[in-house]
Amino acid sequence: MSDNSPHSKIPEPALRRLPWYLSYVKLLKKQGHQQVSSTQIAKKINVSATQIAKDLSYVNINGKTRVGYNIEQLIEVLEDFLGFKRMHTAVLFGVGSLGAALLSDSGLEQYGLKIHAGFDVDSSVIGQKINEIPVFHSDEFVIRNKKLKAQIGILTVPPDIAQEVADFMIEGGIQAIWNFTPFRIRVPEHIVLQNTSLYAHLAVIFNRL
Amino acid sequence: MSDNSPHSKIPEPALRRLPWYLSYVKLLKKQGHQQVSSTQIAKKINVSATQIAKDLSYVNINGKTRVGYNIEQLIEVLEDFLGFKRMHTAVLFGVGSLGAALLSDSGLEQYGLKIHAGFDVDSSVIGQKINEIPVFHSDEFVIRNKKLKAQIGILTVPPDIAQEVADFMIEGGIQAIWNFTPFRIRVPEHIVLQNTSLYAHLAVIFNRL
Repeated sequence: MSDNSPHSKIPEPALRRLPWYLSYVKLLKKQGHQQVSSTQIAKKINVSATQIAKDLSYVNINGKTRVGYNIEQLIEVLEDFLGFKRMHTAVLFGVGSLGAALLSDSGLEQYGLKIHAGFDVDSSVIGQKINEIPVFHSDEFVIRNKKLKAQIGILTVPPDIAQEVADFMIEGGIQAIWNFTPFRIRVPEHIVLQNTSLYAHLAVIFNRL
Repeated sequence: MSDNSPHSKIPEPALRRLPWYLSYVKLLKKQGHQQVSSTQIAKKINVSATQIAKDLSYVNINGKTRVGYNIEQLIEVLEDFLGFKRMHTAVLFGVGSLGAALLSDSGLEQYGLKIHAGFDVDSSVIGQKINEIPVFHSDEFVIRNKKLKAQIGILTVPPDIAQEVADFMIEGGIQAIWNFTPFRIRVPEHIVLQNTSLYAHLAVIFNRL
């Protein structure tokens, strides 16, 4: 075990690798394995055993020399550390094509994200339900969020209004923005921001083909 | 203009930043602007003007000192370079919650990705159409792809079969895999691989909140 306390801040690249390990050890569990070493994980995933051991030192688990980690315990600890076992309340702004698609993806719930409402200004979606999730007019957000207390806001509006809607979400109490637009929004320092640009990934695929 | 020829291989981080510039200059165009300098872009996006000028040197455009880039031309050149103006043929494996959501997101088409078919082994989705896209049994993929000639395969299967399905896609002629599973698949060197792990991004949000 390294000197990292489980409470020291884990760097983002390490944090992003943890779900890979989780997904692999879950497969091992399914195959009936009970122990796994970082060397074994390294063989399957393009990350060195040293890096894996270092990454895992941020979570509260001890590996044993020559035996490795107990798989059941590792899954438990990783899911807990990654926040997948607690339900987090979210809202979504922009019920267009991608927004509606995310509302209908109930898979996110299995990872701890529960979207409680969609917001839009388009009368053709307001009042509708998608996958049981109601869509309201954006004007109602501030009042509705006093009750909902959503901390996470998913941003799937057209890129040209992304900044303005982000500002509006923050005014209404949102503390973390998951930005799916290709627009590079700016947020105050205390606001968590994650950009998931599907189009940037597409561009890489197209360019490399 | 730098020494980079437009055909020299652009590094992935630069490639991923180009859609940010595109989305910002599109906004400027909408606002009636005609010219933009890298300094102006830098002010809005957290990237230095030098870096922006360097990134843009990979695409076939010339900026003029003190005037900057012609916006209309920059949009044209960026969209072309990023591959958003040509339609690319894709198929999708795993018509579960996320897979079905991606099939219904017609927004991808605007960025040059046309999904022609979904594949699954679950009889409850086989034979269905989602957003006009037919879903076939996975067994039919190799034969169907002889006609379709899809180069891009979107992977939204359960993580424990991600590797096996990826291998199968490659056998059927897929040359680029867009992996949405949290599983770290391995592919031969000539295959393009992009990982878009929604769950890893969620983990970062949860951890930072």
